[in-house]
Amino acid sequence: MPLTPADSALFGSLFSQPEVAALFTDEAYVRRLLAVEGALATAQGRLGIIPAGSARAILALTGTFAPDLDALRGGLLADGVPVSALLAQLRPALPSAARDHLHFGATTQDIVDTAFVLTAREALRVLRRDLLAAGDRLAALAQGYAGTLMPGRTHSQQALPVTFGLKAAGWLTPLTRHLERLRELEARLYVVSFGGAAGTLAALGSRGLEVADALAAELGLAAPPTPWHTQRDTVFELTAWLAGVGTSLGKLAQDVILLAQSEVGEVREGGGGGGSSTMPQKHNPITSEVILAAASTNAGLLAAVTRSGVQEHERGTHGWQVEWLTVPQMLGLTGAALSHTRRLLDGLEVHAERMARNVQDSRGLMLAEALSFALAAVLPKEEAKALIWAAVPRALAGEGHLVALVRERLGPRGDRVDWAALTEEHTLGCTTELIIRAVSHYRHVRRP
Amino acid sequence: MPLTPADSALFGSLFSQPEVAALFTDEAYVRRLLAVEGALATAQGRLGIIPAGSARAILALTGTFAPDLDALRGGLLADGVPVSALLAQLRPALPSAARDHLHFGATTQDIVDTAFVLTAREALRVLRRDLLAAGDRLAALAQGYAGTLMPGRTHSQQALPVTFGLKAAGWLTPLTRHLERLRELEARLYVVSFGGAAGTLAALGSRGLEVADALAAELGLAAPPTPWHTQRDTVFELTAWLAGVGTSLGKLAQDVILLAQSEVGEVREGGGGGGSSTMPQKHNPITSEVILAAASTNAGLLAAVTRSGVQEHERGTHGWQVEWLTVPQMLGLTGAALSHTRRLLDGLEVHAERMARNVQDSRGLMLAEALSFALAAVLPKEEAKALIWAAVPRALAGEGHLVALVRERLGPRGDRVDWAALTEEHTLGCTTELIIRAVSHYRHVRRP
Amino acid sequence: MPLTPADSALFGSLFSQPEVAALFTDEAYVRRLLAVEGALATAQGRLGIIPAGSARAILALTGTFAPDLDALRGGLLADGVPVSALLAQLRPALPSAARDHLHFGATTQDIVDTAFVLTAREALRVLRRDLLAAGDRLAALAQGYAGTLMPGRTHSQQALPVTFGLKAAGWLTPLTRHLERLRELEARLYVVSFGGAAGTLAALGSRGLEVADALAAELGLAAPPTPWHTQRDTVFELTAWLAGVGTSLGKLAQDVILLAQSEVGEVREGGGGGGSSTMPQKHNPITSEVILAAASTNAGLLAAVTRSGVQEHERGTHGWQVEWLTVPQMLGLTGAALSHTRRLLDGLEVHAERMARNVQDSRGLMLAEALSFALAAVLPKEEAKALIWAAVPRALAGEGHLVALVRERLGPRGDRVDWAALTEEHTLGCTTELIIRAVSHYRHVRRP
Amino acid sequence: MPLTPADSALFGSLFSQPEVAALFTDEAYVRRLLAVEGALATAQGRLGIIPAGSARAILALTGTFAPDLDALRGGLLADGVPVSALLAQLRPALPSAARDHLHFGATTQDIVDTAFVLTAREALRVLRRDLLAAGDRLAALAQGYAGTLMPGRTHSQQALPVTFGLKAAGWLTPLTRHLERLRELEARLYVVSFGGAAGTLAALGSRGLEVADALAAELGLAAPPTPWHTQRDTVFELTAWLAGVGTSLGKLAQDVILLAQSEVGEVREGGGGGGSSTMPQKHNPITSEVILAAASTNAGLLAAVTRSGVQEHERGTHGWQVEWLTVPQMLGLTGAALSHTRRLLDGLEVHAERMARNVQDSRGLMLAEALSFALAAVLPKEEAKALIWAAVPRALAGEGHLVALVRERLGPRGDRVDWAALTEEHTLGCTTELIIRAVSHYRHVRRP
Repeated sequence: MPLTPADSALFGSLFSQPEVAALFTDEAYVRRLLAVEGALATAQGRLGIIPAGSARAILALTGTFAPDLDALRGGLLADGVPVSALLAQLRPALPSAARDHLHFGATTQDIVDTAFVLTAREALRVLRRDLLAAGDRLAALAQGYAGTLMPGRTHSQQALPVTFGLKAAGWLTPLTRHLERLRELEARLYVVSFGGAAGTLAALGSRGLEVADALAAELGLAAPPTPWHTQRDTVFELTAWLAGVGTSLGKLAQDVILLAQSEVGEVREGGGGGGSSTMPQKHNPITSEVILAAASTNAGLLAAVTRSGVQEHERGTHGWQVEWLTVPQMLGLTGAALSHTRRLLDGLEVHAERMARNVQDSRGLMLAEALSFALAAVLPKEEAKALIWAAVPRALAGEGHLVALVRERLGPRGDRVDWAALTEEHTLGCTTELIIRAVSHYRHVRRP
Repeated sequence: MPLTPADSALFGSLFSQPEVAALFTDEAYVRRLLAVEGALATAQGRLGIIPAGSARAILALTGTFAPDLDALRGGLLADGVPVSALLAQLRPALPSAARDHLHFGATTQDIVDTAFVLTAREALRVLRRDLLAAGDRLAALAQGYAGTLMPGRTHSQQALPVTFGLKAAGWLTPLTRHLERLRELEARLYVVSFGGAAGTLAALGSRGLEVADALAAELGLAAPPTPWHTQRDTVFELTAWLAGVGTSLGKLAQDVILLAQSEVGEVREGGGGGGSSTMPQKHNPITSEVILAAASTNAGLLAAVTRSGVQEHERGTHGWQVEWLTVPQMLGLTGAALSHTRRLLDGLEVHAERMARNVQDSRGLMLAEALSFALAAVLPKEEAKALIWAAVPRALAGEGHLVALVRERLGPRGDRVDWAALTEEHTLGCTTELIIRAVSHYRHVRRP
Repeated sequence: MPLTPADSALFGSLFSQPEVAALFTDEAYVRRLLAVEGALATAQGRLGIIPAGSARAILALTGTFAPDLDALRGGLLADGVPVSALLAQLRPALPSAARDHLHFGATTQDIVDTAFVLTAREALRVLRRDLLAAGDRLAALAQGYAGTLMPGRTHSQQALPVTFGLKAAGWLTPLTRHLERLRELEARLYVVSFGGAAGTLAALGSRGLEVADALAAELGLAAPPTPWHTQRDTVFELTAWLAGVGTSLGKLAQDVILLAQSEVGEVREGGGGGGSSTMPQKHNPITSEVILAAASTNAGLLAAVTRSGVQEHERGTHGWQVEWLTVPQMLGLTGAALSHTRRLLDGLEVHAERMARNVQDSRGLMLAEALSFALAAVLPKEEAKALIWAAVPRALAGEGHLVALVRERLGPRGDRVDWAALTEEHTLGCTTELIIRAVSHYRHVRRP
Repeated sequence: MPLTPADSALFGSLFSQPEVAALFTDEAYVRRLLAVEGALATAQGRLGIIPAGSARAILALTGTFAPDLDALRGGLLADGVPVSALLAQLRPALPSAARDHLHFGATTQDIVDTAFVLTAREALRVLRRDLLAAGDRLAALAQGYAGTLMPGRTHSQQALPVTFGLKAAGWLTPLTRHLERLRELEARLYVVSFGGAAGTLAALGSRGLEVADALAAELGLAAPPTPWHTQRDTVFELTAWLAGVGTSLGKLAQDVILLAQSEVGEVREGGGGGGSSTMPQKHNPITSEVILAAASTNAGLLAAVTRSGVQEHERGTHGWQVEWLTVPQMLGLTGAALSHTRRLLDGLEVHAERMARNVQDSRGLMLAEALSFALAAVLPKEEAKALIWAAVPRALAGEGHLVALVRERLGPRGDRVDWAALTEEHTLGCTTELIIRAVSHYRHVRRP
């Protein structure tokens, strides 16, 4: 595989998202640089800063130009970016009068960063769509399994009963908040980069900001207060969002892996896969593993991108390149994690009967707390507690159901206890209400 | 020093912020646990879930109780949190009727997380205050030095002239955006944690959410849609914000360090410090170094906290503890970075005359671009370019000012060139407008 | 708690190691600075570079001096290190003739870094001791449970049988390699730092390296080829080792947590702890959680320390401070992880009968591979496979033991199959030999 | 560009190393899987575990087989690795008698990990070669510029004079240590992975380790004590080494960037590049920027790979995949950093005359320490210090050379001072010896 499996034709289905990957190719990259140059000329033509004819010629050429990628590669070791080499290919193809009007007043980074914003916007559209699809599915699971009893687990131990619907609601809520955050960050991220060589737009005299505004309008972006050549907080915010989403999905995937253990068996990834030729009993949670791997990798990439925001002076010396090495990967990995989650949830097999059996096999131990409340009504508290604590090891040892063991010991004093209420179904507290809250929170935020 | 210098009495002034550090002591920690227990009892008393007398007794006790910290320590290896041990100390001090009403329906993590939210809120008040103080100072610097010429630098090389006011405006803009983000995250972060042992509030029957809402009201917090025992995106969002702020300050600090180099000398940290007993010529930018160190450390801590969000089931097995090991540190380090930045900006010596000298010493090289525009009006473009490119090495070699060298070569053909406009002062593009935009953006956002 | 719980009197037992923590106090820090100054004077006295009387006076004073920590704190914001302030306190307490001989030819960083090396050496002694104790215990577990059958698990699914002894051997092997690495790194780490203000030892004329060698000898260290003021690879190597150890322990802890799940129950942390007042059935694996939390936090800290090695010129501008903020923590966290692991292994309850039951409950499914080999001897391979694959779902559904189900279908054709060998005990491959290899590898490396 | 520019045909020259990149292609990956399967069959044929004819057939086929990559891709979402699909393509191409002897007793991870070790070995050969080339060049620079005076800088300020040769020696020493570490880690890393489905080699009965040893011999590897399916410390050690090398190169690159600043101008990257079409005066240090970007990215990737070592049970659930997402990248980035460093050093322009000028421009300020020693011989120490401290601001202000200013004030009392020795050339301490030490240390370690 290539240096990252996300770029592999072989492994791409695991670690990449096809629509996002399609945005990150050399060809797409160059195409987008051309689009920004075209939009710049158009904006400047409209403002009369360059002749309308030049603007038209540039727009036409950048819309169709097929660059020689090999030649672009040539200057890269020297320049560090392929923009100058691209311009050098474009100029001879322009009418000579228009040549000086290409890339007018811009700096390399303006073009690359604006192109990046456009790419990120397209990628985030895909990610949001998959986030909503996953959210919709989780809302459906939350409601559909609202009453499907299963053991709740804390510190890896069975604790109190919950329902699978509540678990789905728990997975849903952070996604809802991530949707909110996405809206907030988009308002800051979708801006043009246009500052010229040192952020002053010097080449455009006093008309620089006019051009910045027009270019932004041309591309459906906003104009930022100041150039962001070395102020990278919006890029960081994007990656923090990606990492946050990844982690929330990673938690979901980790739960699926744990619930899919042979000894738990409460869910299973759908599809025929995850098997082993020599171990037909197995059904490996490959999709969840990949989601979790993506989340874990994001965490490290985020550290690099965080530090890379320390960029020097008016344009930096290496932090920008660190972004290239990390941000597309994070878009790709998080995109993959989202589409995998969507697929995982679509196919997820929920084994309600195994959940019920696991609850039953717990021999009432998850009722210890409820039992102590119930007994407190008829016994001195200390005596109640002692009774329960004495019965717990016996239940753990398989001698019987905790409630039965306690009831037996209690004798006639237990007549006033409402034994029928001492079941896991009656120990769900606010589960239903919480599910309703989670789903309505999601519905509220997801509205268009 | 202790395991982190932020906790050192000796090093605290460098790596910590006194007001933030005061929030993070064992005593403050326990006091806040007690406050949450008191608020819970009060809320439950008001709802009639526990007797009013019990509520009053618990509130009174938790308001004044001085726990035996040594005894708390005792159970920690077993329990992993000191809450049970704290309750065990409290109970005997309560009227016997009230004992069962303490901590009613809550789980350990509810108390600890709610206490953390309260602490974070207090810490963020301090951080916002210092962020605003730094912002105010930057706005003043931006305006005060709006016209103070200095070399703009890209890739560590002098590029085009800028002004120190523009540099300050550049530092300001991300802080403005961080203020926006802070408001947005506070709406998600300032919520109560109240889910009971497995997130269902089982012990409170159907009244759990009512209590959650009342507890939230009691503490001036909101109630979240679902428990966040293992959904940690809001904690992550907080740390991402801290890291983002740290990085923006780190960029500022890095710039100061670079501008303070012996060979540049354009700024100097104020105060008498940073010196060396044997090298009196030195003035080390210690404050900037500490800010940058804090930012760099944040980046790594953020990686840990990102991955720690993968918490299992209803309550996790180690991610929560990773938060303890990282989040307070990030609050402390970022708090320190902010207060140091504020101090740095208050005392910053701006050496305008050295800036001017550096511009002058550049021998017109930063005018190459402007020169090519000016010459393009009177010469074929290629000839103009050739003239300039021939003069640049001579100017670099110290043979004269670039403009003079070119003018000399040009002879009478240069008569139509507006030579007076070929100065760095005339090559500032939109600098003034950008400063105005940055300051008004800040003023708009900072409004109360 | 303080900014890190590792520095907390309350939480210290969880996140710190008392002997390591004792090395990291303000007092111990200053004491060690004094020790280095004393050793330097002694070395210089011996070489006749300073008068013997001065050397004696300095050694005597630095051995007993009780500095005013408050006053040290004073200069820290300016100097960034407390060395100058400490020297300023020392000088008046020296005979006037000796004053100029204190700290002769050294720079601040020489003293602090040499003191750090001495501290690290003491800390690593503690860590190695605990690593050996854990290794010894693992070797004993590996041998003691060499034949204790349990399910082997891959991708969270039961796969093939293993033994608990093999698991312990697996945990042991990386610790053996870490011991090897420790020896290798110590040879590089235990060197003096002595370069003077810019790494040339200028103040000592031509005798600088002589002093460096003598100082090293005085402290039982070696002298490095060149000063390491800004060449930090040995510090990085130390932290990478710590992180590597932490991760290996984290894997062990993660396994314990998984094996301790209610549904698995194969091991349990010893001691009475990890319980819950309202859920007496629980036994939370708190110790393992803390080990894993330490490992996870290390991972982030390592990112920060890695990047911090980019230190500028002859002495850096912030990377050194990042080390202060991270390296002691990593020593403390890894020390805690090691001592907790030692304690965990000492008390670990191995539930062999539950392992046996889990194997039994697997209904022969882990024998599928062995069965296919056995049947291949008597049946066409495809038919054998079809038989097994048909029986697997029935065994999974609880209809019987896989071997019995297959045997039943096979009828008389199965007479030539050695059914007695189709048990998990007979499917352990090289388990015994692997355990022997692991233990003898460890014994070989741990030899003094 | 693709999700990482290291995989880009366009950007590959910047962020990748052609020889390393050639090892990381889908085709090379599959070819190596085939090689391991071939070697396994050969080893088993030799031991008589499979028929010699089968071994020959398998070896022949795997040596020439051209797999259908599209078909491999097919099963990946289900299996998570392409090995089963590859075997499914191979089997029909084998004589039917040999089909069952393919992949005999191995598990997927055995093949993939062994193939990875072989790849890493090839990659490290390239990296070592470039490390030695860089080391040789640094040794030559250290010796060639042993006496080339330049300002030494600490905290970004001119401190004391050094020479460029000493700087090169400083860059060299960590590379020497990295060479040592590389030898040490290779002894642990170059081992076969062969454990079978759960690490017991169950399918091979008692002959598993015999096969492991034979397979290792076949591939020129060693056999590890125990399987390392979930014990990943050797992989971590590799990545820590890569990150460590990256950081040492990053420090070198950072120094070059700082020395290449317009205001410093002491070095310049060779080649015609780094320029700007509109700013001909610029010469951007693009190569150094890329080296530093690679180092910074490594730091984050290392955090991910560190945490990924927590792999569960006998085979993990996601940590392995995190390695795929990070380790090849780190090999590629570090390989790129090394080859760029080699190229950077080959072409580096050292501007000795500018160094000399910068020393001269410092007006004797770097002699303050030497001056205080010299004066101490003829004046009371306090008076000497006062004289110097009074002169420093005057020298800083450009009023003259520090030594001259002091001498003037001192009058006839200065007659006994050896003024001729008060030059930067005489203030180099042990510079020459340090260079000799560094070079001989390197020569000693690099010996074959």
